[in-house]
Amino acid sequence: MSAASNARKGRPDLEIVVFEAGEWVSYSACGIPYLVGGDVKEVDDLLVRTPRELRDRLHIDVRTQHRVTAVDVHERSVEVHADRKDRTFTLGFDELVIATGAKPFRPELPGIDAPWVRGVQTLVDANELLRHASDVSCREVVVVGGGYIGLEMAEAFVRWGATVTVLEAADHVMGSLDADFAERIHASLRGIGVDVRTNTGVLGFESRKGESNDRGSVTTEDGAIPADVVVLGMGVAPSSELADAAGLALGVKGAIVVDRQQRTSVDGVWAAGDCALSQHRVSGQPVHIALGTVANKQGRVAGINIAGGYATFPGVVGTAITKVCNTEVARTGLTEGEAAAAGFSAIATTTETSIRAGYLPDAGSMAVKLVAERGTGLLLGAQIVGDEGSAKRIDTIATALWSRLTVGDLIDLDLAYAPPFSSVWDPVQTAARKAERALAAVE
Amino acid sequence: MSAASNARKGRPDLEIVVFEAGEWVSYSACGIPYLVGGDVKEVDDLLVRTPRELRDRLHIDVRTQHRVTAVDVHERSVEVHADRKDRTFTLGFDELVIATGAKPFRPELPGIDAPWVRGVQTLVDANELLRHASDVSCREVVVVGGGYIGLEMAEAFVRWGATVTVLEAADHVMGSLDADFAERIHASLRGIGVDVRTNTGVLGFESRKGESNDRGSVTTEDGAIPADVVVLGMGVAPSSELADAAGLALGVKGAIVVDRQQRTSVDGVWAAGDCALSQHRVSGQPVHIALGTVANKQGRVAGINIAGGYATFPGVVGTAITKVCNTEVARTGLTEGEAAAAGFSAIATTTETSIRAGYLPDAGSMAVKLVAERGTGLLLGAQIVGDEGSAKRIDTIATALWSRLTVGDLIDLDLAYAPPFSSVWDPVQTAARKAERALAAVE
Repeated sequence: MSAASNARKGRPDLEIVVFEAGEWVSYSACGIPYLVGGDVKEVDDLLVRTPRELRDRLHIDVRTQHRVTAVDVHERSVEVHADRKDRTFTLGFDELVIATGAKPFRPELPGIDAPWVRGVQTLVDANELLRHASDVSCREVVVVGGGYIGLEMAEAFVRWGATVTVLEAADHVMGSLDADFAERIHASLRGIGVDVRTNTGVLGFESRKGESNDRGSVTTEDGAIPADVVVLGMGVAPSSELADAAGLALGVKGAIVVDRQQRTSVDGVWAAGDCALSQHRVSGQPVHIALGTVANKQGRVAGINIAGGYATFPGVVGTAITKVCNTEVARTGLTEGEAAAAGFSAIATTTETSIRAGYLPDAGSMAVKLVAERGTGLLLGAQIVGDEGSAKRIDTIATALWSRLTVGDLIDLDLAYAPPFSSVWDPVQTAARKAERALAAVE
Repeated sequence: MSAASNARKGRPDLEIVVFEAGEWVSYSACGIPYLVGGDVKEVDDLLVRTPRELRDRLHIDVRTQHRVTAVDVHERSVEVHADRKDRTFTLGFDELVIATGAKPFRPELPGIDAPWVRGVQTLVDANELLRHASDVSCREVVVVGGGYIGLEMAEAFVRWGATVTVLEAADHVMGSLDADFAERIHASLRGIGVDVRTNTGVLGFESRKGESNDRGSVTTEDGAIPADVVVLGMGVAPSSELADAAGLALGVKGAIVVDRQQRTSVDGVWAAGDCALSQHRVSGQPVHIALGTVANKQGRVAGINIAGGYATFPGVVGTAITKVCNTEVARTGLTEGEAAAAGFSAIATTTETSIRAGYLPDAGSMAVKLVAERGTGLLLGAQIVGDEGSAKRIDTIATALWSRLTVGDLIDLDLAYAPPFSSVWDPVQTAARKAERALAAVE
């Protein structure tokens, strides 16, 4: 929808048709855990724009429950199946944007297609998860995968009084953090009663016999865990089958290869969002990062270019943020592990400071880990775990990474200080000072 | 103390003597309003390090109540008056750091030296203001000058139940903001009952006759306002008399001229903190910015260089932040007015957005004003006024200014998003998108 609305802004004369396989367009999938947890009242609150608004205000012809089944890049047409009328038709195009998004990763395990095993992606999922959460007979919830969405969902179900178990195949949750920082999240989760089981792979899902097939158990190497509902939080995979079948080049993890203008390998065909690749500005490598921020930016760039303007998407630095209970978590750039994998020789330092002036009540505390390149002092990444008011400071470091600043530059930045907001050296600068000493020590 | 402790870290063998005219060293002057307002329990909480700690841990010979009365840069010595013993002596130096700070601006008005007219600078002021605030007979407080400290003190006294009047000679408080943004603060102040009188110059201060000379009234063109205590919040002036008498070059507002290593115009004499100038990275001009952040950074640089290391202070971008009641305020770079004065042709746009995802309860709102150069789109400055969680986002823009980013770059930044922290386009990016449209419109 971002591509469509930006194309509209640039070219009032374009005929713009949007096909959506599901029932909804333009909604916040990231809001689903907050809907299930009760902060958001109803599914409709997550809608940014209704198809009617898009039609009336932006003159975009949005057709929901229309599934594009094939793309013919030579004939310049798409084949569409209209679900309600159950008929198939073909529509020609001058320019095509593929924005098929991503789907929750579903490993091939026995029973994974049971109706009580759900991803967190569409508003159908949202409704279904909310129905489970608010059902008094829903007492036992298993979350498979301890990523952002998995942990947000764990907290949402705890709020309803359910017993929640998180199963994580790796040795720590939050795979996008280094283990030492992820450990801090374990403590928070356990604090609200979540049973976090690391190094625990799932073998399958078994529906309960003799019942309505509406619940079952999760089989692990350590035995079965009963579950009224299972939430899949194992990450997502790009939905690129349509693009693949059309002959478009795919890259890392099967995501669609795009250039900085969001052009695919085929002339006049564009891709944006969770189905497409991005360039990582720190590692210099293509990455698949399925986040709403990236999707919106890529869509905007595609739309502007389609309308004859010029815009580029210069890449990501891998920023992400969440909140688990009252612990805030953020990361940007490369972890220690990722820096090594990308070929950097790096140092990493961790500092713990108060968030505000230490002499104020409830100053709170936060830990900052900085990763920097040996020799140059180039910032490579950061992780933050802390109390309220800590995590959004990752933006300072994300901006610094974007500009290729060094640890020394971070010390010099003119960041805002007053006692209710920071100590006189902002926590990220205190972190930089420690990193600078570590860099000097290894020179 | 920052210069002294950094010099110590680099050179364990140096003999380091610190002369301080007052009783305290190494304290947070910025914390005084929070002490007076009751958030901080006692004056000692504002001490970072005691003279004893500095002596014992860092082997720095701190001598309080020692006033340096003259510097002889040819003889390389200082003349010192020891208040307690009431004697004067001379001490030679190899390297001298002048860190005499700033003093509250006191216009030459009749009665301004009355004991009930106080600045907010030292811990003596802090004790005296706290004594007034907690005195049940202190009912009427006048704050002269509506800058950061003045408004923070106004709020502190309101908390004690006093009637507070703020007198501001200009047409709006917060002179470091444009008028349209300062207006938003007026509303907050009035909301807690502060009587804000703009365009109101002070003519003098009159002590009440027949009483203990411990209160009086403030004379203005619109009549006299009774006052149990007057707080001077008219900004500060560098304390550079000693440097001037020693023949050091002074610049804007009489602050000491320093190079990027914090060297003054005289070899072996350094200056740092509120008495020294800084370079403004956006305007390219020397500025006097008396803030703890700048002072700490400059002191660090001087200390490292004195110890034979190499460090530079590459300047400021003019970042500042505060909180008035529950309204947060921040600014960085140049205002519209400052941009014009610095010779830029600039556009300015204001956006109002929710701080978090709009569908969450208590999402809060914030206004962002961006100032950018026509043609290049170079970011020149920003102002933020908003609810809790808004103002510290100025750091993203401060970092962008530091790196000389454009409005287009700000749109592209990979900032952190999750519903409890932001909308999918961070408020500063929504502001950048509006600024981009304004730039396109004037091209």
